[in-house]
Amino acid sequence: MNTATPAYDELASTWTRLHHLGHLQSLAGWDQAANMPPKGVEARAAAMAEMAALLHRMRTDPRLHDQLERAEQEELSEMQRANLREMRREWRLSNSLPEALVQKQQLASSRCEHAWRKQRPANDWVGFVENFREVLRLAREEAALRSQATGLSRYDAMMERFEPGMTCARLDQVFGEVRRWLPGLIEQVRARQASEKVIAPVGPFPVAKQRALCEQVIRLLGFDFEAGRLDVSTHPFCGGVPEDVRMTTRFREDDFLGSLTGTIHETGHGRYEQNLPREWLGQPLSHARSMALHESQSLSFEMQLGSHPGFVTHLAPLVAQAFGPQPAFEPQNLHRLMTRVKPGLIRVDADEVTYPAHIILRYEIERPLIEGEIEPEDVPALWDAKMQELLGLDTRGNFKDGPLQDVHWPEALFGYFPCYSLGAMYAAQWFAAMRRQMPDLDARIGKADFSAVFDWLRDHIWQQASRWSTDELARRASGEVLNPAHFKAHLEARYLG
Amino acid sequence: MNTATPAYDELASTWTRLHHLGHLQSLAGWDQAANMPPKGVEARAAAMAEMAALLHRMRTDPRLHDQLERAEQEELSEMQRANLREMRREWRLSNSLPEALVQKQQLASSRCEHAWRKQRPANDWVGFVENFREVLRLAREEAALRSQATGLSRYDAMMERFEPGMTCARLDQVFGEVRRWLPGLIEQVRARQASEKVIAPVGPFPVAKQRALCEQVIRLLGFDFEAGRLDVSTHPFCGGVPEDVRMTTRFREDDFLGSLTGTIHETGHGRYEQNLPREWLGQPLSHARSMALHESQSLSFEMQLGSHPGFVTHLAPLVAQAFGPQPAFEPQNLHRLMTRVKPGLIRVDADEVTYPAHIILRYEIERPLIEGEIEPEDVPALWDAKMQELLGLDTRGNFKDGPLQDVHWPEALFGYFPCYSLGAMYAAQWFAAMRRQMPDLDARIGKADFSAVFDWLRDHIWQQASRWSTDELARRASGEVLNPAHFKAHLEARYLG
Repeated sequence: MNTATPAYDELASTWTRLHHLGHLQSLAGWDQAANMPPKGVEARAAAMAEMAALLHRMRTDPRLHDQLERAEQEELSEMQRANLREMRREWRLSNSLPEALVQKQQLASSRCEHAWRKQRPANDWVGFVENFREVLRLAREEAALRSQATGLSRYDAMMERFEPGMTCARLDQVFGEVRRWLPGLIEQVRARQASEKVIAPVGPFPVAKQRALCEQVIRLLGFDFEAGRLDVSTHPFCGGVPEDVRMTTRFREDDFLGSLTGTIHETGHGRYEQNLPREWLGQPLSHARSMALHESQSLSFEMQLGSHPGFVTHLAPLVAQAFGPQPAFEPQNLHRLMTRVKPGLIRVDADEVTYPAHIILRYEIERPLIEGEIEPEDVPALWDAKMQELLGLDTRGNFKDGPLQDVHWPEALFGYFPCYSLGAMYAAQWFAAMRRQMPDLDARIGKADFSAVFDWLRDHIWQQASRWSTDELARRASGEVLNPAHFKAHLEARYLG
Repeated sequence: MNTATPAYDELASTWTRLHHLGHLQSLAGWDQAANMPPKGVEARAAAMAEMAALLHRMRTDPRLHDQLERAEQEELSEMQRANLREMRREWRLSNSLPEALVQKQQLASSRCEHAWRKQRPANDWVGFVENFREVLRLAREEAALRSQATGLSRYDAMMERFEPGMTCARLDQVFGEVRRWLPGLIEQVRARQASEKVIAPVGPFPVAKQRALCEQVIRLLGFDFEAGRLDVSTHPFCGGVPEDVRMTTRFREDDFLGSLTGTIHETGHGRYEQNLPREWLGQPLSHARSMALHESQSLSFEMQLGSHPGFVTHLAPLVAQAFGPQPAFEPQNLHRLMTRVKPGLIRVDADEVTYPAHIILRYEIERPLIEGEIEPEDVPALWDAKMQELLGLDTRGNFKDGPLQDVHWPEALFGYFPCYSLGAMYAAQWFAAMRRQMPDLDARIGKADFSAVFDWLRDHIWQQASRWSTDELARRASGEVLNPAHFKAHLEARYLG
């Protein structure tokens, strides 16, 4: 190869290989959730573990360090330099932990998660803690090592895996602010909605019709079915690869709204992936910026656009067409159904107003857990107190709908929860920026012209991928870094306006 | 590791890794055919090529040769020794060809196959030959190298990839015999069937009902849906891995028999895979013995059992249940529909009586092609002459239903065709052996007791996997090596009895 950037080129070709092999791994993960018959479990786990080990060996190949150093000295374009920065970050994420720790973690998480599946329905907190203690011990070890490698505090270093640049200092400020106005806002919204008449839809809603409706709405939202699919899995997700995006949903005959809004949510993830820059495919530069940014896309679709009264006027006739006309399907009523606010115990069932309370609570518990300030035994009391304080709900003794409800802790995904609410805040910030640039945005949405939204997101988020830091991306897109005031303004406008 | 067989153990662990990574490759191939959206083509091809290269590197790792040599000197059990023999064979298959030739072949076949898709419908033989000439040139080079590596003749060495132990000398004898009685038999059967009244089924046959019927029949045939699936693809096949078998079929609203019998065929492949010995999983010893043996299972299911008049008495009510009663679905009529003999141009549409004619014709053309005795230009005249001679059909000028009809030649799968007919012969031989051991076999089938068939196949074929050579397996199962007399007897009993 005749090139002036030999080390950079070697790195780029390693990342292309990682992309190709990662394609097979991603597909196998999707298939496991969407297709795999029960007796395939063991063989699939062995195959995916083999690939994970292979990918890990490639990412920890000792030659990479030297290549990264040499590439820094090469004459690179601005984009190549940004790509190199992201390579360094990925390299660091893979190389901060000794192999033995990673293996112990996989074992501990897998044991904890497996037992949790039965412990949750059995409300067995004590049994859970037995396994969780080891998961946490290893996570603290990981946090200490990541902290050394990055110079960040321990929880910041854990968060950096998902949300580079985000720190507890900023989160404390952002969530602290939300904490001040959220309980009052929830109360106001609840008071207002108390007098609203809402008609419940009458089921059953046949799955084939729900599926057709979902596909229709996904198309309306611009997802390219020539480069992706919609299938069914127990836990909806968006997987696959940018060139072939695999979204999943789940259907219940007695409720169509859950799968419909869930599908709209996944479509936001899906369009982000489908519209990442192709000229950098396989390179870290082309990866989605962060998990908060990813959630900002799913929530731009589900909450900002999907629950927009203008969008619902176009959605309502499609629903009526799918299931036959009902009073519940009138646009105003459908919109009320989609924006009903009710404090509840379960995060994934929460509306967009009460949702941040669930996240703040988790952040305020998992951060001291990681930093060694509290122990698993302390969690239930903290959980109870915070649920009371934030949502006015009594959860005492109800572990299964309390700290046992999410898979994140058994799977050691500490530092992930904040991304959900940061995503909601960024989504509000993007739409505020769009409105400033396009004062007729809401009128356009009301006229079923969604292209303004899609074009803005494509240009400012999707096509930017990991070119900039999150702050820089936010600044270029909206003129400022994360500003939760837009989220507050959005909720007030939609729920009190 | 404290072991007396260090080299053997290293080999075994390499093959386990190959099995795990092959799992992902196999799944990606299935998904490509069953699920993948059109724009996923390029990314999938790149991912699978990366994996193919990786697997090839593992199979041609220079350390393997030494390990194989050392393992020969180790104290191995009989099973380990058989496994080592199969490792050697796989090693030889992967190491006989230089990397450069393999790459040139992939390129040439891919170009030829791609162009063939349009050349076939356009009847463009001349255009096809332009690409095919290079495919053949490289295949001859391959044959020469494989011949050197094995000491076999060139066509034998190509055939050995699919059917180890089979030689032209034996094929000439076997097919020579068939050639003598087949045209006369076809004539007799045709004369006899001319006076039979056959009622045609009346469609359409809704796809959902066909699918449910197929699944019901697959279950009846003992396929484990907890360890496999049935999906749809353009060209039906049986893929996946033994632990998770992925069968496919295709549906036409105007014809249910094609997909039903096709599904029964794939079920034979599927049960073979599902019942390979688990204690040797991943090791070459646990692989299906050969392609003829694999076809002997699909044809045991489709032809020996599936078209057995006793089986059809149980199939008929299921068909009537699926689509509503019709005179065509009466057992006798359904059986006549399933055993109708009619010489035709297309191999894959052929009945079991005329099928061998298609194979003999291809064998008699591709062997001299590989051995350099004829050139692509000579194929059409030979094809015409042999179709006339074997089936009394005029194919002049009709290339698309002649030498352009199959994907095997554009894909350079020389030496594969004989396996189809050898499979039919072995299937007849297995059932003859069963009848000798269980004189009430046909009565049992008539009473819907198929377990005798499944148990025999499991014990004699499936669980034996690659433990023995094909000849030894046949001898142990049926008391003799391949004997085409059983196939003749089967056809005479079914069609003239």
